[in-house]
Amino acid sequence: MVKSAMGDSRIPRLDDDYTDEAAQQRRTFVAERTRAELTHVGRYSLDAGSVRGNVEHFVGAAQVPIGIAGPLLVHGEHVDGEVYVPLATTEGTLVASYNRGMKLLRASGGVTVTVVDDAMQRAPSFGFDSARGARALALWIQDHEEEIRRAAEATTAVGKLRDIERYFASRWLFLRFQYTTGDAAGQNMTGRATRAACQWILENFPGEIREHFLESNLATDKKASFVNVLRTRGKRVIAEATIPRRVIEEGARVDLDRVFSARLTSNLGTRLAGTLNNGSHAVNAITAMFIATGQDVANVAEASAAINDARLTPEGDYYYSVTLPSLIVATHGGGTGLATQRECLSMMGCVGPGTVNRLAEIVAATVLCGEISLGTAVVADEWVSSHERYGRNRG
Amino acid sequence: MVKSAMGDSRIPRLDDDYTDEAAQQRRTFVAERTRAELTHVGRYSLDAGSVRGNVEHFVGAAQVPIGIAGPLLVHGEHVDGEVYVPLATTEGTLVASYNRGMKLLRASGGVTVTVVDDAMQRAPSFGFDSARGARALALWIQDHEEEIRRAAEATTAVGKLRDIERYFASRWLFLRFQYTTGDAAGQNMTGRATRAACQWILENFPGEIREHFLESNLATDKKASFVNVLRTRGKRVIAEATIPRRVIEEGARVDLDRVFSARLTSNLGTRLAGTLNNGSHAVNAITAMFIATGQDVANVAEASAAINDARLTPEGDYYYSVTLPSLIVATHGGGTGLATQRECLSMMGCVGPGTVNRLAEIVAATVLCGEISLGTAVVADEWVSSHERYGRNRG
Amino acid sequence: MVKSAMGDSRIPRLDDDYTDEAAQQRRTFVAERTRAELTHVGRYSLDAGSVRGNVEHFVGAAQVPIGIAGPLLVHGEHVDGEVYVPLATTEGTLVASYNRGMKLLRASGGVTVTVVDDAMQRAPSFGFDSARGARALALWIQDHEEEIRRAAEATTAVGKLRDIERYFASRWLFLRFQYTTGDAAGQNMTGRATRAACQWILENFPGEIREHFLESNLATDKKASFVNVLRTRGKRVIAEATIPRRVIEEGARVDLDRVFSARLTSNLGTRLAGTLNNGSHAVNAITAMFIATGQDVANVAEASAAINDARLTPEGDYYYSVTLPSLIVATHGGGTGLATQRECLSMMGCVGPGTVNRLAEIVAATVLCGEISLGTAVVADEWVSSHERYGRNRG
Amino acid sequence: MVKSAMGDSRIPRLDDDYTDEAAQQRRTFVAERTRAELTHVGRYSLDAGSVRGNVEHFVGAAQVPIGIAGPLLVHGEHVDGEVYVPLATTEGTLVASYNRGMKLLRASGGVTVTVVDDAMQRAPSFGFDSARGARALALWIQDHEEEIRRAAEATTAVGKLRDIERYFASRWLFLRFQYTTGDAAGQNMTGRATRAACQWILENFPGEIREHFLESNLATDKKASFVNVLRTRGKRVIAEATIPRRVIEEGARVDLDRVFSARLTSNLGTRLAGTLNNGSHAVNAITAMFIATGQDVANVAEASAAINDARLTPEGDYYYSVTLPSLIVATHGGGTGLATQRECLSMMGCVGPGTVNRLAEIVAATVLCGEISLGTAVVADEWVSSHERYGRNRG
Repeated sequence: MVKSAMGDSRIPRLDDDYTDEAAQQRRTFVAERTRAELTHVGRYSLDAGSVRGNVEHFVGAAQVPIGIAGPLLVHGEHVDGEVYVPLATTEGTLVASYNRGMKLLRASGGVTVTVVDDAMQRAPSFGFDSARGARALALWIQDHEEEIRRAAEATTAVGKLRDIERYFASRWLFLRFQYTTGDAAGQNMTGRATRAACQWILENFPGEIREHFLESNLATDKKASFVNVLRTRGKRVIAEATIPRRVIEEGARVDLDRVFSARLTSNLGTRLAGTLNNGSHAVNAITAMFIATGQDVANVAEASAAINDARLTPEGDYYYSVTLPSLIVATHGGGTGLATQRECLSMMGCVGPGTVNRLAEIVAATVLCGEISLGTAVVADEWVSSHERYGRNRG
Repeated sequence: MVKSAMGDSRIPRLDDDYTDEAAQQRRTFVAERTRAELTHVGRYSLDAGSVRGNVEHFVGAAQVPIGIAGPLLVHGEHVDGEVYVPLATTEGTLVASYNRGMKLLRASGGVTVTVVDDAMQRAPSFGFDSARGARALALWIQDHEEEIRRAAEATTAVGKLRDIERYFASRWLFLRFQYTTGDAAGQNMTGRATRAACQWILENFPGEIREHFLESNLATDKKASFVNVLRTRGKRVIAEATIPRRVIEEGARVDLDRVFSARLTSNLGTRLAGTLNNGSHAVNAITAMFIATGQDVANVAEASAAINDARLTPEGDYYYSVTLPSLIVATHGGGTGLATQRECLSMMGCVGPGTVNRLAEIVAATVLCGEISLGTAVVADEWVSSHERYGRNRG
Repeated sequence: MVKSAMGDSRIPRLDDDYTDEAAQQRRTFVAERTRAELTHVGRYSLDAGSVRGNVEHFVGAAQVPIGIAGPLLVHGEHVDGEVYVPLATTEGTLVASYNRGMKLLRASGGVTVTVVDDAMQRAPSFGFDSARGARALALWIQDHEEEIRRAAEATTAVGKLRDIERYFASRWLFLRFQYTTGDAAGQNMTGRATRAACQWILENFPGEIREHFLESNLATDKKASFVNVLRTRGKRVIAEATIPRRVIEEGARVDLDRVFSARLTSNLGTRLAGTLNNGSHAVNAITAMFIATGQDVANVAEASAAINDARLTPEGDYYYSVTLPSLIVATHGGGTGLATQRECLSMMGCVGPGTVNRLAEIVAATVLCGEISLGTAVVADEWVSSHERYGRNRG
Repeated sequence: MVKSAMGDSRIPRLDDDYTDEAAQQRRTFVAERTRAELTHVGRYSLDAGSVRGNVEHFVGAAQVPIGIAGPLLVHGEHVDGEVYVPLATTEGTLVASYNRGMKLLRASGGVTVTVVDDAMQRAPSFGFDSARGARALALWIQDHEEEIRRAAEATTAVGKLRDIERYFASRWLFLRFQYTTGDAAGQNMTGRATRAACQWILENFPGEIREHFLESNLATDKKASFVNVLRTRGKRVIAEATIPRRVIEEGARVDLDRVFSARLTSNLGTRLAGTLNNGSHAVNAITAMFIATGQDVANVAEASAAINDARLTPEGDYYYSVTLPSLIVATHGGGTGLATQRECLSMMGCVGPGTVNRLAEIVAATVLCGEISLGTAVVADEWVSSHERYGRNRG
């Protein structure tokens, strides 16, 4: 709580905000106004200058414990072999659970992964006197896609405009600009490009546009949404494996038929729950890898969507797939260049140009290992007990 | 990538896993098998012994930059006054945007916050020969709630069983055990308690239960879901403010009528998008505060759900509310006791018994500030340009 | 199109609206103003006086062809034996498809049906200065449930108030009054009762209620919604059967394993589609039975929600269930007393007090037969071809 | 209930099923086996031969009362002027409510309507060994769209293949074939065409397709779904009007500000309810018009989806729009040629080639009138009382 006697409560602005001294000064400011000494927060090893563009009012760093899981045997198109996966988490048993899953999947020959789609969006809206104006603009855009593309792409060396989707509601036209964005997640790149494209539209469309907003919740950045599940946001990645019955029954000590029944019942549960996501805990791997590797962790809101599909094969084995329809990852930009984050990316061979799909493949393969691990543990009733073994700090 | 010549690829297990030496040994193991030197990862200041129960295969810590925003003027029932908020993020402009929103809201007299509900769940399923068996169990449970409560609460000093909801689908009965869990988030506590309750049911119910799973995706932990929006998970918190028209128009330099129109159009966009969440970016504050304060960040999947409602008052001012129906927070357990995390909690007066609702109130108030900040920036076309100013590292 | 020269375009009001003469006069009015002669519309056999309370500006009747399917072998708690089902439809193959399903299910020993829940709602909202007012009213209602019940039930001889659910969003309290309503669907009964209850609340609650609406889209009458799927609206009915493998393979000439695979793939499809309903065409039976029996056909919007769950049994047979979470049916009131409608109800033994659950059971059993019929036809590729055989009128 | 002593319980098959004698014979069969005399059901005026292709096991007709509402003043691109609307319903007050809305909208200058999109779908699925097979087929289809189009369009004189959408989940490729279908609803036409297209794919694709189903719940016929709301099914129609404040306040005797508040609160309610549809009762008009005009009434499941958007204009008037994203209507095929149905179409000028969009416009305009009518009645507290006046038959 602020001690009001301390004078000005505004956080001090400094000549150069991104120095150790500035951070120290702000920590002192906090200490004077609250009960907190930010001692450990100040014990970072990253270069204070390096966080310019990542944070404002920098005071130090959160230390989030990292555990490693692996080796993960992954058969992607951008990585093929064993990988160790860094997981930044405070949830006991999480690393152990993924590690266990990776072991089961290694014994099954590994995880096959495929990036099947790739698109980052920005979705501006245009308002008219009536729906007919919206329809007129939609048709006009169809005829001027080349000029709009030029306007958009002029703002970026990397981003490419794939296409422009058009949606009608009321007297509004919603556009959904879709881009590929190289190794970057691309939200800012697409924001800039779409702003330029909209500027061009506003200047050149002969009709009267009454209102315009650069975004109106159809993108839908940082929100779980059906449009992202259906139409992809970021990478659409599919991880698959066939796990021999004996691996489940010996390795996880559970009856595969019960595991399959549990899966179908979970699907049934999601019908009642009303969730986009019928998986178990994809979000655990995704969040822990996002924190470790400097992703925009808030994108977990949509990246955590996972469609699981399980089948018993004619041979009685267990085919399992996880489809991640909106996995937003980057190996360039954002927090990916920070000190610990870059080391974690490096550990997976994900530093340098052209590595983003490799990262997407590793994330999806890790997710699948966790689904198998938890999916068998629930049946074996090991779930609560393993939390008791590993998770002593937990509430 | 693993150099396969290195021999055993299994991550070394050690006598005491939670020492600096063990972490160092694993970092060396990683360095030998991948291209990565985990130098900065090893430069943590937290006590290696303290992460027992938070992580396995500990190798060090991710350093996530923290910026501070504030002062936030919040009028809750557990906090009333100015607070500084730590935000751990790598997304440029995030802190600046929240800080700007806090300034606007201070000028408006602050944010009123209310925790209106509180419940943590575990949702076991029971399978029968037919739906009639499910119905029979549902009725029997109604008659034995006291015994079931005793069995559940015997496993925990803190957790209290509020009630047991019963849902029917196919030949399955899904129960949704609802608990209060003190200052802990309570997922583990409710898991243990519900396991004990189910054990009692399995032993005492006179009918024949064919299958039973401790969880079948109705909880729905770490997934955005309608059931959580409707029925609450964790805290249900509502933040509200009335922002005078002049504060919007002078402070944010935008026409309030356009801001309101943008909000209604965003609502319309979510109809097309199919999202539970009609807000702007609640998840940004929630994620950054969760990382800073040692929450289970994966809970962002459901905690990010936000229902925004905006109205113009008869006086022409802007009433705005954010309802967070499934905010899962803790001030005890999980990562809340770790070094930097505890300092960040301390900064907001959230260390010690009975502080969890205070934290919930501060999170919700911060979210509201961010909604106003982004909601006005989109209209003022400052959104992309501020990312250009602050977010140079971004892709 | 109206010939504007015809003078007053208003539909004539008459001394007694519900006579054959009044209907004839309106048909003449229509004929004079449009190109249509409503000859067949005027050839109804129902008593013009009988439609008072069912329609205004009565001009005659639509004739919707009825086909019959059966016998349906149903094992409910309100009907146990063979039933013939009237289906009013213009969709070729519909009757044939249900008839085929009924034959398969007869060969399988019939359909077991259970009504597991029963509730009709009305959901008023109350607005306050802030969320704290909403919470105060919620607590107050908890303490005054008996008085509120008395006020509600004073308006109806049949309806019973089960409970009052309370939901918070923004500064609003939404209540969801739940009633049982005997043999009536009960929307009007619950409307009246809830209005009286709200009146009592408005007069007696000591706090200040700023706004109040008798309904705010949480009921949610005549809309597909998650709240109805989760919490029931009307009857929640579950139909189940175990179909021997040989019945599928001989009777429907398809491989059961392919039928099961098709079902799982349909489930997967619904993940992309974003639908509450993972069934095939429950709505076909429901609509055709609703038209035939005088239900409020617009309730098909929510009644059509169907959760299908299919499993292969250890013996290799096919367990199949359909859960209808929001089946709104009546055997009293609405159109159930009209001439043809009553005959169709009579055909199923659904005339007279206490027959509503019997009707619910027959509807659900019929739905299940159709799911099996179409589920096997799709796999056998008989689907399009049977439409070619039966559906020559179709576009 | 079947009297089992009656011998063979199978419904009699006859030489010519579509005669009055055959229908009579089946009614006698029913009378002998159940308690029902189908007297009124047998008093149809339609030609028994005309229902071939619409129904099997024909026994007669349901008589559904028709009321008329109007004149509706509609400004579409296919109709411009006053129209009378036939509504087949048994719900008292329905016709009166629409009639009242039409009066308010006439006083406001009428309803503007626009058909902005048009597409009917069939969505086959193709299964592979892994997701890579699915991706290979997707790419191959892109290269062979012309041949696929030829194969599809060879089956129909009317249907045109617009495009083929491709969706990935697990190891499955889901296609969504989109057609225009002239004046027909087109489900059968698209079924046939897509079957032919799939046949061509199966014969020509060089890779190995493991499984194939002609439909897997992505179409999604007769189910409320997000994909239909987002991507259109049938016609996407938008009805709009600006209602002067005085029309609301004098014509409906309510304060417009309260009406607008009620609308925003209804929007809020749908957030809790989890519905695709934020309107009031679009389904009432749609169902009543569908029954009257021989539409496939089961399509109400998706056709009832309605997105409402309301705004106060700068002048203080009420702009209101209804977007129907998946309105499936026909003026050819199905039940549109039957006796009473054709008369009702004729009444609206919707008989003959090229009339389907006219019908779509009239339906949407009618829906909007009903939204205004109910939206003001709820606020005026006339809703329950008008049901008491008109709906005496209701339960």
